[in-house]
Amino acid sequence: MLRIALIGYGYWGPNLLRNFNALENVEVSLLVDSSTSRLDAAKVQFAGLNTSTNANDAFLSKEIDAVVVATPVFTHYILAKQALEHGKHVLVEKPLTDNSEHGIELIELAQKKNLTLMVDHTFLYAGAVQKMKVLTQDGTLGKLNYFDSTRINLGLIQQDVNVLWDLAPHDISVLGYLNAEVPVSVNATGVSHIHNGIENMAYLTVNYQSNFIAHFNCSWSSPVKIRLMLLGGSDKMIVFNDMEPSEKIKVYDTAHSVSTFEEKRQVLVDYRVGDVYVPKLSTTEPLKLMAEDFVHSILNKQVPVSNAAGGLRAVQILEAAQESIKKSGAEVKIKMA
Amino acid sequence: MLRIALIGYGYWGPNLLRNFNALENVEVSLLVDSSTSRLDAAKVQFAGLNTSTNANDAFLSKEIDAVVVATPVFTHYILAKQALEHGKHVLVEKPLTDNSEHGIELIELAQKKNLTLMVDHTFLYAGAVQKMKVLTQDGTLGKLNYFDSTRINLGLIQQDVNVLWDLAPHDISVLGYLNAEVPVSVNATGVSHIHNGIENMAYLTVNYQSNFIAHFNCSWSSPVKIRLMLLGGSDKMIVFNDMEPSEKIKVYDTAHSVSTFEEKRQVLVDYRVGDVYVPKLSTTEPLKLMAEDFVHSILNKQVPVSNAAGGLRAVQILEAAQESIKKSGAEVKIKMA
Amino acid sequence: MLRIALIGYGYWGPNLLRNFNALENVEVSLLVDSSTSRLDAAKVQFAGLNTSTNANDAFLSKEIDAVVVATPVFTHYILAKQALEHGKHVLVEKPLTDNSEHGIELIELAQKKNLTLMVDHTFLYAGAVQKMKVLTQDGTLGKLNYFDSTRINLGLIQQDVNVLWDLAPHDISVLGYLNAEVPVSVNATGVSHIHNGIENMAYLTVNYQSNFIAHFNCSWSSPVKIRLMLLGGSDKMIVFNDMEPSEKIKVYDTAHSVSTFEEKRQVLVDYRVGDVYVPKLSTTEPLKLMAEDFVHSILNKQVPVSNAAGGLRAVQILEAAQESIKKSGAEVKIKMA
Amino acid sequence: MLRIALIGYGYWGPNLLRNFNALENVEVSLLVDSSTSRLDAAKVQFAGLNTSTNANDAFLSKEIDAVVVATPVFTHYILAKQALEHGKHVLVEKPLTDNSEHGIELIELAQKKNLTLMVDHTFLYAGAVQKMKVLTQDGTLGKLNYFDSTRINLGLIQQDVNVLWDLAPHDISVLGYLNAEVPVSVNATGVSHIHNGIENMAYLTVNYQSNFIAHFNCSWSSPVKIRLMLLGGSDKMIVFNDMEPSEKIKVYDTAHSVSTFEEKRQVLVDYRVGDVYVPKLSTTEPLKLMAEDFVHSILNKQVPVSNAAGGLRAVQILEAAQESIKKSGAEVKIKMA
Repeated sequence: MLRIALIGYGYWGPNLLRNFNALENVEVSLLVDSSTSRLDAAKVQFAGLNTSTNANDAFLSKEIDAVVVATPVFTHYILAKQALEHGKHVLVEKPLTDNSEHGIELIELAQKKNLTLMVDHTFLYAGAVQKMKVLTQDGTLGKLNYFDSTRINLGLIQQDVNVLWDLAPHDISVLGYLNAEVPVSVNATGVSHIHNGIENMAYLTVNYQSNFIAHFNCSWSSPVKIRLMLLGGSDKMIVFNDMEPSEKIKVYDTAHSVSTFEEKRQVLVDYRVGDVYVPKLSTTEPLKLMAEDFVHSILNKQVPVSNAAGGLRAVQILEAAQESIKKSGAEVKIKMA
Repeated sequence: MLRIALIGYGYWGPNLLRNFNALENVEVSLLVDSSTSRLDAAKVQFAGLNTSTNANDAFLSKEIDAVVVATPVFTHYILAKQALEHGKHVLVEKPLTDNSEHGIELIELAQKKNLTLMVDHTFLYAGAVQKMKVLTQDGTLGKLNYFDSTRINLGLIQQDVNVLWDLAPHDISVLGYLNAEVPVSVNATGVSHIHNGIENMAYLTVNYQSNFIAHFNCSWSSPVKIRLMLLGGSDKMIVFNDMEPSEKIKVYDTAHSVSTFEEKRQVLVDYRVGDVYVPKLSTTEPLKLMAEDFVHSILNKQVPVSNAAGGLRAVQILEAAQESIKKSGAEVKIKMA
Repeated sequence: MLRIALIGYGYWGPNLLRNFNALENVEVSLLVDSSTSRLDAAKVQFAGLNTSTNANDAFLSKEIDAVVVATPVFTHYILAKQALEHGKHVLVEKPLTDNSEHGIELIELAQKKNLTLMVDHTFLYAGAVQKMKVLTQDGTLGKLNYFDSTRINLGLIQQDVNVLWDLAPHDISVLGYLNAEVPVSVNATGVSHIHNGIENMAYLTVNYQSNFIAHFNCSWSSPVKIRLMLLGGSDKMIVFNDMEPSEKIKVYDTAHSVSTFEEKRQVLVDYRVGDVYVPKLSTTEPLKLMAEDFVHSILNKQVPVSNAAGGLRAVQILEAAQESIKKSGAEVKIKMA
Repeated sequence: MLRIALIGYGYWGPNLLRNFNALENVEVSLLVDSSTSRLDAAKVQFAGLNTSTNANDAFLSKEIDAVVVATPVFTHYILAKQALEHGKHVLVEKPLTDNSEHGIELIELAQKKNLTLMVDHTFLYAGAVQKMKVLTQDGTLGKLNYFDSTRINLGLIQQDVNVLWDLAPHDISVLGYLNAEVPVSVNATGVSHIHNGIENMAYLTVNYQSNFIAHFNCSWSSPVKIRLMLLGGSDKMIVFNDMEPSEKIKVYDTAHSVSTFEEKRQVLVDYRVGDVYVPKLSTTEPLKLMAEDFVHSILNKQVPVSNAAGGLRAVQILEAAQESIKKSGAEVKIKMA
């Protein structure tokens, strides 16, 4: 039985509470939030829940094995640090921290203390992403060539963070999950059409030693909602359209053996080469799988799928992207962890 | 009656011949191609057509008023130059030339000779683009904020030119047609997965003095064919999906007066603000309109829609993009015409 | 303050409880279900809720003004009848009853007792249907010509009722809501591919005195999910695609003034005549509006949108359809209420 | 070398001329049309073509082996009859004739004379239909359960024939091609919103001895163009969307082994059971394959894919449908050939 304290009961907290509560070998022993009315609302739904407005109650309690931090990003570092120092395993909402130095410090602290530190990149546990991982790992795609993501819609403008920090972490975490190659640098451009000067549109290229390339198109100012990811390999290519209710992933042949002019023209007319395969995906709630992975990683001392190293890598890419935008799109090296 | 010589009867030439032939006040007096079998094929279809394998027959003939150049891009400059020097009006297939110095020289020559020099950016005459022009000019969109184009498919790999030179001219010409602001610089990234080192995927940002931004995603290596253009204004935004058989253009409200938190949440749920308008588009063949514009511009000494200045601007952007790719995505100023 | 008893806490009951509970001038005074574990689950979520396993507690209580019946269809008649006899207003889940005689008896009883009897055809309160009602009533569509509905998917096969009784009520209720003309007869065909002989696919035509026609395509055996409704008028036509996340309704011009052959050919090429209009729809939860309508109808002695007469009409059409299927698709008159 | 006369050079004739002309072992020896200007147009395009305004020139010539009839449907019978009587093989545009007695007479005449009589149901040679034939014949689909076709758009209203005779032949011929079972009867309903009383909307069910069912939804009055065919088998189901540019056919698992309640719910959420397969289709022009089949059938004395028996069956179904519409949708037996 793992006893967990959840800190933060805002937008995502209720989902975390519901999922951890449903796990058999877990007890949510304490819920912490600064708002007593939020805590009361939680108690109505979960009878017998212990609550507190003071995070120290979580850190100091000997009953608590692990802390889940679901608070605004600027508080992640200090809360996670205190939890680790008090010997608690920690799960932090994405992004891990708002700067990479803090992320590195947390990772080193967790290693020193021999504790699990995990970031909640829930998207990694989506059925579509899990299937992409399988098709990448089992060699179906061949050598990876590119990753191209478009995540745009008419979005709620954030007050404190630009569109890349808001939207790109989902896709950047998938990129790191699917492609083991370490990225080298980024180029990013973006503009703000808002009074506060925060970019509401941005474009990000991530460069590699090999000729693999990754690109992210993020916008809060698109009249249509697009969630489209292309993953190109030397043998097969995947189109992941997250707006499709059922057929989210399609697997296509890569046209690599085109030889005669007539065959080339044929490709142009039909613009595809072979059969297409639309795999059946798991429909298990991704957040449930993430919660299970956190518990399983602690109990078995294993590295979770959504681990802190991947979370740090995402922060480092976002930091470099922000610097590149300021430097008019110039190439910016990604810090080494 | 305008008498025209057409030089080049390859992929696009037959379409030009058919369309110019159908105009009432035009006579295609001569067809030039290096291949006699191509010329014979044309004569079967168009009885009584004069043909030649020597372009000088077009330049030297006093019967010819104008020359249409539909040959490979590296020959545009020399053919157009000779035609202008012999006093002929000139229409050149896009792109105008393969470098901007040559383009400038042609423009200055045409001005000196008081001749019409036009580039065939046929796409500008598409019903959808014409409608976008109207909606931009009549103030429907308000202040323009961005232009975002995706033109990707499983394409025929070109041997001599990268994917930007192949695919981006369509959209770059539309950008210049719709937005009068002069672009300042570009950032471009791209990679080659092909042995010859020519980029088969590339991303291009065009920067402006104002906070307008334009972005182009071009690829020959996408398993799906996407032709999508977003044009964002302060009042309305347009989505142009060229893969739609009928409803190519949709006009959306821009969410600019969101004020309360509840209204913001509402936007998130429904992700649009007002009614959508799908205008009926003209279905006249764009190439017919382009041919008419060429003739009309000559006869009335007017500047055509697809004029040489716009063609040069496209070449300058492509040149800068190529340089930026070589410089690892660094900002490259666009040459002033 | 209206005090309500809810009978039945299965699939739909929790939604009804949540929505009635949220209304300001309503108190859900009693929840009745045969399962004590279901009742306990409700009490956890709604502290202080009174419950019972005996429906008589609802009928006999003087505290209760109205009864909401959300039980299996074969129990609707007896429960609604008892509630009305005890002077309670009644809301019944759709369909009203499983035969029209019972439906007529309930309507007459409610009239005699001067009580509100309402059927919960929630779909009538959907933003899309409400917009269709407005466009029909304000004359935008002109004279109505046809109604064509396709509601097919890979469905959960019902054990006791065929696909028409399962899927068609949604669309039949919309038909009755939008078109005031009284239907005359039906033709229906269908087959069973299941051992129990219950039709899993059926086609239904509803005939009218005028040349209006309505058709329903219902299937549990389609590999793809389609929810498509066409409503054709002499001036405009509506396409309602309920699978679209945002642009559910599109309004098209009807091509009625085509005159010359050339114009006709043009229609063929582009297959539409004028601009298309995609109205913004209300996103208020339909069930909330239905609950409000029930309360409002009682308090103001008005006829609700989803009234018993419409519910009866739907039952009569379904009865006639079932008879027509048995008679090899022969025309069957719809009983007059 | 097969020498062919083509009678009729209206809408479809030019396509037939072009395709037969391109075949190696065929010579189009004579073109017949009542309009000399049409004949002149053909001669411009095909130098050296013999033409006539008198069909007898085709029938009487000993040079001619076969006659292709592409004239209005009411002339098919008399022209095909004369051609057969003069010992010519005959290809007739669809539908074979406008009544089944004439169709039977032609078939018997061809048999007596030992000549090939074929109907041009071009659609049977489409890549998608050919693939459906393969998947049906090789047992992939299992036992066939249903055929459901929707063919609706804003159509050119015909003056002499209703919407079923105009649109349904395509799909009825496919039905007969894919399912060998002989249909027994039909039910059809339809209405006219046009002054001439010709049905512009119609619904047709075709009934079988087994529990196979076929349904056709045809309309000239739909604001959107839909070309959708579902073919359901006991093991797999096919969705054929002819509006898709590339992925026209998708093959789905049939959910036949659903057992537990939880599995059923899962089906509801995701509404499909297994992987989906999108086969690559041939892009050869169907008309070319049809022309080749005609020639091959004559030379090898084999029954063509688009044979007269299938053409007659389509006419018999359409005749029965028309009668059923007149009889208010009553079941009408299909005549036995």
